[in-house]
Amino acid sequence: MVRVGICGVTGYAGYEALKWLRRHRGVEVVFATSESQAGKSLAAVYPGPLDAPLVAVDDAPFADVDVVLLALPHGAAAQVATKALQAGCKVVDFSADFRLDTPETYARWYGHAHPFPDMLPVPYGLPEINRAAIHGARLVAAPGCYPTSVILGAMPLLRSGLVTDRTIIVDAKSGISGAGRAPKLNTLFAETHDTVTPYNIGHVHRHVGEIEQELAKLSSGAAPTVLFNPHLVPVVRGMLSALYVRIDEQVDAPTLQALYEQAYATEPFVRVLPAGQLAAMAHTTNTNMCAVSVTLAQPGLAIVMSSVDNLAKGAATQAIQCMNIICDMAETEGLL
Amino acid sequence: MVRVGICGVTGYAGYEALKWLRRHRGVEVVFATSESQAGKSLAAVYPGPLDAPLVAVDDAPFADVDVVLLALPHGAAAQVATKALQAGCKVVDFSADFRLDTPETYARWYGHAHPFPDMLPVPYGLPEINRAAIHGARLVAAPGCYPTSVILGAMPLLRSGLVTDRTIIVDAKSGISGAGRAPKLNTLFAETHDTVTPYNIGHVHRHVGEIEQELAKLSSGAAPTVLFNPHLVPVVRGMLSALYVRIDEQVDAPTLQALYEQAYATEPFVRVLPAGQLAAMAHTTNTNMCAVSVTLAQPGLAIVMSSVDNLAKGAATQAIQCMNIICDMAETEGLL
Amino acid sequence: MVRVGICGVTGYAGYEALKWLRRHRGVEVVFATSESQAGKSLAAVYPGPLDAPLVAVDDAPFADVDVVLLALPHGAAAQVATKALQAGCKVVDFSADFRLDTPETYARWYGHAHPFPDMLPVPYGLPEINRAAIHGARLVAAPGCYPTSVILGAMPLLRSGLVTDRTIIVDAKSGISGAGRAPKLNTLFAETHDTVTPYNIGHVHRHVGEIEQELAKLSSGAAPTVLFNPHLVPVVRGMLSALYVRIDEQVDAPTLQALYEQAYATEPFVRVLPAGQLAAMAHTTNTNMCAVSVTLAQPGLAIVMSSVDNLAKGAATQAIQCMNIICDMAETEGLL
Amino acid sequence: MVRVGICGVTGYAGYEALKWLRRHRGVEVVFATSESQAGKSLAAVYPGPLDAPLVAVDDAPFADVDVVLLALPHGAAAQVATKALQAGCKVVDFSADFRLDTPETYARWYGHAHPFPDMLPVPYGLPEINRAAIHGARLVAAPGCYPTSVILGAMPLLRSGLVTDRTIIVDAKSGISGAGRAPKLNTLFAETHDTVTPYNIGHVHRHVGEIEQELAKLSSGAAPTVLFNPHLVPVVRGMLSALYVRIDEQVDAPTLQALYEQAYATEPFVRVLPAGQLAAMAHTTNTNMCAVSVTLAQPGLAIVMSSVDNLAKGAATQAIQCMNIICDMAETEGLL
Repeated sequence: MVRVGICGVTGYAGYEALKWLRRHRGVEVVFATSESQAGKSLAAVYPGPLDAPLVAVDDAPFADVDVVLLALPHGAAAQVATKALQAGCKVVDFSADFRLDTPETYARWYGHAHPFPDMLPVPYGLPEINRAAIHGARLVAAPGCYPTSVILGAMPLLRSGLVTDRTIIVDAKSGISGAGRAPKLNTLFAETHDTVTPYNIGHVHRHVGEIEQELAKLSSGAAPTVLFNPHLVPVVRGMLSALYVRIDEQVDAPTLQALYEQAYATEPFVRVLPAGQLAAMAHTTNTNMCAVSVTLAQPGLAIVMSSVDNLAKGAATQAIQCMNIICDMAETEGLL
Repeated sequence: MVRVGICGVTGYAGYEALKWLRRHRGVEVVFATSESQAGKSLAAVYPGPLDAPLVAVDDAPFADVDVVLLALPHGAAAQVATKALQAGCKVVDFSADFRLDTPETYARWYGHAHPFPDMLPVPYGLPEINRAAIHGARLVAAPGCYPTSVILGAMPLLRSGLVTDRTIIVDAKSGISGAGRAPKLNTLFAETHDTVTPYNIGHVHRHVGEIEQELAKLSSGAAPTVLFNPHLVPVVRGMLSALYVRIDEQVDAPTLQALYEQAYATEPFVRVLPAGQLAAMAHTTNTNMCAVSVTLAQPGLAIVMSSVDNLAKGAATQAIQCMNIICDMAETEGLL
Repeated sequence: MVRVGICGVTGYAGYEALKWLRRHRGVEVVFATSESQAGKSLAAVYPGPLDAPLVAVDDAPFADVDVVLLALPHGAAAQVATKALQAGCKVVDFSADFRLDTPETYARWYGHAHPFPDMLPVPYGLPEINRAAIHGARLVAAPGCYPTSVILGAMPLLRSGLVTDRTIIVDAKSGISGAGRAPKLNTLFAETHDTVTPYNIGHVHRHVGEIEQELAKLSSGAAPTVLFNPHLVPVVRGMLSALYVRIDEQVDAPTLQALYEQAYATEPFVRVLPAGQLAAMAHTTNTNMCAVSVTLAQPGLAIVMSSVDNLAKGAATQAIQCMNIICDMAETEGLL
Repeated sequence: MVRVGICGVTGYAGYEALKWLRRHRGVEVVFATSESQAGKSLAAVYPGPLDAPLVAVDDAPFADVDVVLLALPHGAAAQVATKALQAGCKVVDFSADFRLDTPETYARWYGHAHPFPDMLPVPYGLPEINRAAIHGARLVAAPGCYPTSVILGAMPLLRSGLVTDRTIIVDAKSGISGAGRAPKLNTLFAETHDTVTPYNIGHVHRHVGEIEQELAKLSSGAAPTVLFNPHLVPVVRGMLSALYVRIDEQVDAPTLQALYEQAYATEPFVRVLPAGQLAAMAHTTNTNMCAVSVTLAQPGLAIVMSSVDNLAKGAATQAIQCMNIICDMAETEGLL
């Protein structure tokens, strides 16, 4: 049994992780932390089937666990990660603290110096592009939800060398749980239920940093620029990214389809839909799957639809997938 | 033209009032206040078609208006009401500050002494039961949303003398806008969207005070006790109360139906549904209507369904209806 | 490995059953039927992670399975059940075809003669009240969703002898998946999303028959009459029933609480909430749990809130729980 | 008083038209038709505040009205339009039957010959681009919902001559009422509530025909190709189109903003948001407004967000706007 600690279990992603770990046959959850609710039990502060005593991070017995899932806010995660590593734990971090490879890139996107620049770079925890590096790591930076959908959607095209314009337009739709559980005006029910709201469009959303960093590594040609246009839509969980990519005008639809099917033929958690079907949020809700469809809209323009559950493959279950890899368990354990 | 000021226009009920007043042919809106957003324009802080410069209450020109709609939080309204009255305005207050007739009842339900006990009692602003008193008033206390649906649903039965058990059970369902626009965990989208949540059931919700006060006045027999059981349901606006009332076992369904139809035959804003139809939220959304159905479930037990829009007939448009009455305008003006 | 066939996998409850069986370690799904989609694959007609070849019931290899989960519409199930039983299978039927003990009761609630009157009675598949009878059965009638929530909510009180009025009022709220997947006006998104709609209130909903039948068996006193008042609420899945029960006026709140805690102390799938918490839909969504709270609203009146997921404990997972029992597997296998 | 008849009042757009006409001071509604519900009253088949006797189209007294609003399905409208015109009525048609200028274009997008080719072309009823032609017409083809949002969003850029790439990518999100009130699997609540679903992406949605037709007329350069990618999102009403347009790299953000503000400076129903704000559905729900924002994402790429209510400015209220114009009433009457 791998002994696991979860930090930040009262956030949506941390709670989701605990929910999935109930069904995992290779782990035992030893502790669960919450700063705001320490001393209470999880069932007292969260309706739902789960329960666990909540301890403060400072009281968490890191020495008693093999691996820590770190579902803390950006900025708060890095310090706890160092503490867990010093206690001998392996760590999968859900936050953005270790996703960018250099202190310079981090400062560019997060507006301040990285607190532990010597720890960078850390393996980017997207197994489908980085499985080997994850396997040997003691610290893994699980990707953001938007980056997961965009990178998996773009990867086959970028590797193929068929992309002809380095500007990729992404129109993304996210469920509202992605904004977290802290009360804010713009995530109130009455503000969000009957509307779709774009925000941070263009080249400003922080996830652009990690998307462009990883796409550059995958590209056979020039590093892509991603114009990333996210929208809040009134679902609790789910994410759908539409990628508009200019490609070689000679490529036909069957070639595109084959490119995607081959790229993911052996991946257990990426499903390429048959030609003619379009990926929707419903394909992946409550799963660790990414569903991808590719459509030739006209000669020279491909539309990729990429769907993940922002709390699952976009956060908690992807972290568990990484945990399975770094702990030498079957990669799919607990994730079906 | 009646000159109107709105205090608290950035709350849901205040915003709703301004929305309806655009179509009112007898009024001119002179000012709109917001404590948190004073100095900005309404369109800058609220998506939607409305705009107005926002001033602080302390800077509002009460002397320039004939009537003030007071859409402030409970507790904050009373003092502003006194100020507006001293400036010569008539006032329709949306809050609970003046709904209870005595300082003692107020203290019983709100847990502290009334700040202006000498101002009580104030006419209760439910025109269908209190039109004459409203007409001559300078200050009116517009009812709460739950009380509007419950009192209008119960009134014909209580007046009839057919009620045989003084305990009335009410199972009520409310849209989430009723909880206000201040960010709170329990009104976040992700906490409310996929669930129905009961709260404050039994005899503890503060609206029970005004419901029982008004039902006592309407009853031909003993004052009723209301067991009031509210639930949050995932709609933005709307309210549906189910009233379970024990009545004389001799009463048949056509008699019940006739009782309701006669009670509201001349009321422009109460619609008694034909026998066999049940009132749903959809009957009244975005209207100043109350839709009522009455069903004889078995001999001796009537089920009344009473639907209002919590932001309209349950708040803003009911206040406008009161304003029309106290300002000698047609009662239905601006409300169709 | 227990070999399982699912009939009606393209309905919501059948699909849900297949979803849960993926995680069940004791079964192998051998076939899945769909009348409307036979010849296709499940993934082609249903977005989501599941897939299976779809066969017509007439082509299903009943002889190759040990147990059949029958998720067919009322009326269609009985005949298939007889066929499966003749092939030597055990059967858990999701429909209402075998829930009523006598042909007379069936005719009373369903309006026509039972097609196989000699097969009645069949064990009612609610393990918490009927575990022993289920264990030895070859055919089990899984309860309806509303009955599951009402019976589990009422059982401790009825057995206690404390109920003083045989009329029990139930105000129930159901997710819209309960109305099935056949296109109908009243389950369209635009008809249901912004409203709460009562229907079939009083003593007419067909589930009243099985509720009263089972409550009569549990009651220490006179058989209860249930006034059952269902509402459609805009959630996909979930169910919350509020039970208003008159009880002995001497009973205090701690006694009530203890009564419920003791009644379900050893049940893995019923959770009695601590005093002061109220059961909401969120307590049970996507689980096989029933969450129950009991509140003393005033001396002599108890309010029970009972929450189940209508597709899980109200249908598919309850059927799997029955399957586990009749196949001698651990009752909780695959259900956590 | 202008006398009005509405054909197809039990569809969503027809019902919406009747709702708005209640507040219109220049019209009297003389009849309302419904094929499926003729003989009933509207209130009996539709929850809500409206009522009207429903007659079959064949029994409608066209001779008694001045103008007919035709909210019939595509294909059914053309014949009724001819009948109404022959009776001397003016006609505003909500359907696609007369939107395309030539029989050839119609056949290209609708797959069959136009039934009345001699009637084409008909003025396209988008007042902001075609007010003069509408004014003198007896038959007007009100635009589709998607085309309204796309054409109004694109117009200032196309007229400016700044567009450098004739391919315009549109990623559009629509409320589900746009799919109509006929029961279909893909508009059921349980199929749509928790997901976002793309459909008909690329160059195949029928609205592409009218979009490209009208954009060609507005363009100073080559006729644009529109890659149009619609999604169903779980709101009842609302529409948000994101337009990705390549423009001259020299254009800066203030120039773009000024271009849009000037283009719509005198339009009562188009609101250009201030720089830095993004149009969301909430800006236009339940209004006849189009809200537009323009953002320079990077040099050479503009992102236009264009929001309309698909049932209002996208259908019913736009038709009323056209009716006001052809009947010489104030264009804004009844639409605030």
